[in-house]
Amino acid sequence: MKHLLGIDDLGAEGIGEVLRLADSFLEVTRRDIPKVPALRGKTVVSMFYEDSTRTRLSFETAAKRLSADTMTFSAGSSSLRKGESLLDTVRTVEAMGIDAIVVRHKSSGVPQRIAGWIDASIINAGDGWHEHPTQALLDAFTLRRHRGDSFAGMKVAIVGDIKHSRVARSNVKALSALGAEVTLVGPPTLMPPDLEGWPVKISYDLDEVLPDSDVLYVLRIQRERQEEALFPSLREYATRYGLTSERLARLRSDALVMHPGPTNRGVEIDALVADDPRSVINEQVANGVAVRMAVLYLLLGSGEGRAA
Amino acid sequence: MKHLLGIDDLGAEGIGEVLRLADSFLEVTRRDIPKVPALRGKTVVSMFYEDSTRTRLSFETAAKRLSADTMTFSAGSSSLRKGESLLDTVRTVEAMGIDAIVVRHKSSGVPQRIAGWIDASIINAGDGWHEHPTQALLDAFTLRRHRGDSFAGMKVAIVGDIKHSRVARSNVKALSALGAEVTLVGPPTLMPPDLEGWPVKISYDLDEVLPDSDVLYVLRIQRERQEEALFPSLREYATRYGLTSERLARLRSDALVMHPGPTNRGVEIDALVADDPRSVINEQVANGVAVRMAVLYLLLGSGEGRAA
Amino acid sequence: MKHLLGIDDLGAEGIGEVLRLADSFLEVTRRDIPKVPALRGKTVVSMFYEDSTRTRLSFETAAKRLSADTMTFSAGSSSLRKGESLLDTVRTVEAMGIDAIVVRHKSSGVPQRIAGWIDASIINAGDGWHEHPTQALLDAFTLRRHRGDSFAGMKVAIVGDIKHSRVARSNVKALSALGAEVTLVGPPTLMPPDLEGWPVKISYDLDEVLPDSDVLYVLRIQRERQEEALFPSLREYATRYGLTSERLARLRSDALVMHPGPTNRGVEIDALVADDPRSVINEQVANGVAVRMAVLYLLLGSGEGRAA
Repeated sequence: MKHLLGIDDLGAEGIGEVLRLADSFLEVTRRDIPKVPALRGKTVVSMFYEDSTRTRLSFETAAKRLSADTMTFSAGSSSLRKGESLLDTVRTVEAMGIDAIVVRHKSSGVPQRIAGWIDASIINAGDGWHEHPTQALLDAFTLRRHRGDSFAGMKVAIVGDIKHSRVARSNVKALSALGAEVTLVGPPTLMPPDLEGWPVKISYDLDEVLPDSDVLYVLRIQRERQEEALFPSLREYATRYGLTSERLARLRSDALVMHPGPTNRGVEIDALVADDPRSVINEQVANGVAVRMAVLYLLLGSGEGRAA
Repeated sequence: MKHLLGIDDLGAEGIGEVLRLADSFLEVTRRDIPKVPALRGKTVVSMFYEDSTRTRLSFETAAKRLSADTMTFSAGSSSLRKGESLLDTVRTVEAMGIDAIVVRHKSSGVPQRIAGWIDASIINAGDGWHEHPTQALLDAFTLRRHRGDSFAGMKVAIVGDIKHSRVARSNVKALSALGAEVTLVGPPTLMPPDLEGWPVKISYDLDEVLPDSDVLYVLRIQRERQEEALFPSLREYATRYGLTSERLARLRSDALVMHPGPTNRGVEIDALVADDPRSVINEQVANGVAVRMAVLYLLLGSGEGRAA
Repeated sequence: MKHLLGIDDLGAEGIGEVLRLADSFLEVTRRDIPKVPALRGKTVVSMFYEDSTRTRLSFETAAKRLSADTMTFSAGSSSLRKGESLLDTVRTVEAMGIDAIVVRHKSSGVPQRIAGWIDASIINAGDGWHEHPTQALLDAFTLRRHRGDSFAGMKVAIVGDIKHSRVARSNVKALSALGAEVTLVGPPTLMPPDLEGWPVKISYDLDEVLPDSDVLYVLRIQRERQEEALFPSLREYATRYGLTSERLARLRSDALVMHPGPTNRGVEIDALVADDPRSVINEQVANGVAVRMAVLYLLLGSGEGRAA
């Protein structure tokens, strides 16, 4: 495997390999000196054309824990202002001998286009509404830490703005590949128009889906969707689709609550959820570093100097 | 000690420990390879919600010389624009396994609030008008290099905009704790309203205080204070409270001149002062790295791999 | 040699030394672990007052491959907004014990001024219209990889906006010093007024110069020059001075095409040139890392731990 552009690059077997490898890297991250020389001399560049502190820092932490060198540039500080084309930028970065580029871009398909141009490894860190594969991998890893390898029959409800969510798209692919049953929940205006062929059920009623769910995956609601009149108000949204404390009380005692962060407390999720034992939101973040170490290692590692 | 939020976290004994440890790190910074493995595998993140090249680079240099990994984000490039709350950001950073967060924020008390939320070490790199403890520590360290441990009876005049100065607040605490006699000098409009209980003398007349001072600590004057009409003009300010060459001539030959930088040459301090043998302004900067190494080491060091 | 401010700091002999040293560093960059401990413990700061992803990342890659620590600040995130003077900034950076400052600035002469103030090594990474010495060195290195040491009599045409080009100025100096014959080609409005004494020929007719050239060095055209009415339109410029596919066909089969990047495809250079075997544009970028390693090593290396 050379690039990670979307979940389909991996398939169920590849996902399994990432998750098993992430287990050993999670152990590394808990050591006193949470560092291995696996990628010494490799260079990883973060190209973030869209802000994301959490994703950028997670990848950089992962790279540093593998002893890779890291460099970063964001759209604001880059040569984009100078009219330098994306093609020129990535060819330049590659010619310098960079081994991997972690790309976040607001347009779907940009990481794929870049991968077609150059030989360095490309990791999609989120492209438009398309995919965010390492998020889905860390979500699957988090579920696996709690439930073991038996995804078969696990009922996962993904709730919110499915239409504009790369997190939802990557999770539908990853969770279905692993055998889970995914139900998408949200208002019709926030469902994608192209749902045919998706291996999912659809529901417009969270309260109906809630009691049966093993996992409630709550998506972040973008405030700008309200301005686009896709729902009447944040309050109305919270009433119908928010994980309120009332709904939390009706959630099964062995269910898990997930969220890709950052949360809009009081909108799609109640402020109290963070302290509920069923919430694994902070674990998701912690696991993200181990999963990204696994992805970087699979793409760039030579097999020598490995964690174990 | 887990956090460094203000000078009171240390007390006289803690200050002494930092200063003694900084001695050995100052020696490290003068080696051919000015680096020790003391914090290998530790990760220090700079969260600067207010620009400060000098403070950020000083902390990053200190962390690198201890072999820690460093990452940085500033308000401009962070997820703040996305409406991510401070709480979410720091919880995320902590969940990634970061060991220390160096925080600069324009609001007083922010580092303290963060310290209440998470388990990573928080270092206050300046919060509003409140405190800037590592600045006071490097100032004390600089004085100690010149005068030894005998702070008792040392007359220190801090001159300028006391009201809005976190540097003044931290220095009053640190220098008093060590036994120095601090006099605050400035126009009444730039004195804090809550001076009762401060262990200081007050003067509105620099020329009266000048001849007696062992140390003249000149604060930076913010040009925006003039717009707030706190003094008539920069020229008027310079005439009454600036360290002009005339005043420099009347300063004792064994006195020291200090400034937290960056200086407004020709306003609060004459351009010639930099070349005066009594100025230790550049030493303050150099000592800052050693003092911040000491603070990071005290907060994060395990005792193994230590400098000595 | 302490600084690299312009090509004259080196002379033919110094250029030769950089190029020979870059040979061994190019070999380092091709290793599995492309890293040597030559500059361990040294700290290199990038001070970029003008955006340039490619130049900044090239210097940072070079420094990391020599095991130096790197830090960066750009005008946007720096204390410049605070009115901190350049003098204060560089004195501060130096006082922290930084070994080298890589400076990019829009004003000619800034690196030279800084070098007059402080003891750290200054590397000019481009100052106004003045010089960009490491670009000229990597260009000479690229030519030498293809043509060996015999620059004598080599005909190099530099085409475009000579007047505003620091790349042209540095290349004229370096290539002439090595014995090449340089012809400057462009419209009279884009020729510098002070050409007397330059060791070059001038031509306003690319088609006349083209068939005789061993090297065609195409400069980037800044779109803002059109707004200054220095040429009628980009299309008109492309017709008279662009390296179109027609002109490419008339270029000698053993000629080389160079460009400092990033290219304006379809303006000064045809999109097809990148795939032409005579183009060494990507090699220039790759060689840039090795050449900058050589420069950093010459300025900061102690002789111990060297590449070989």
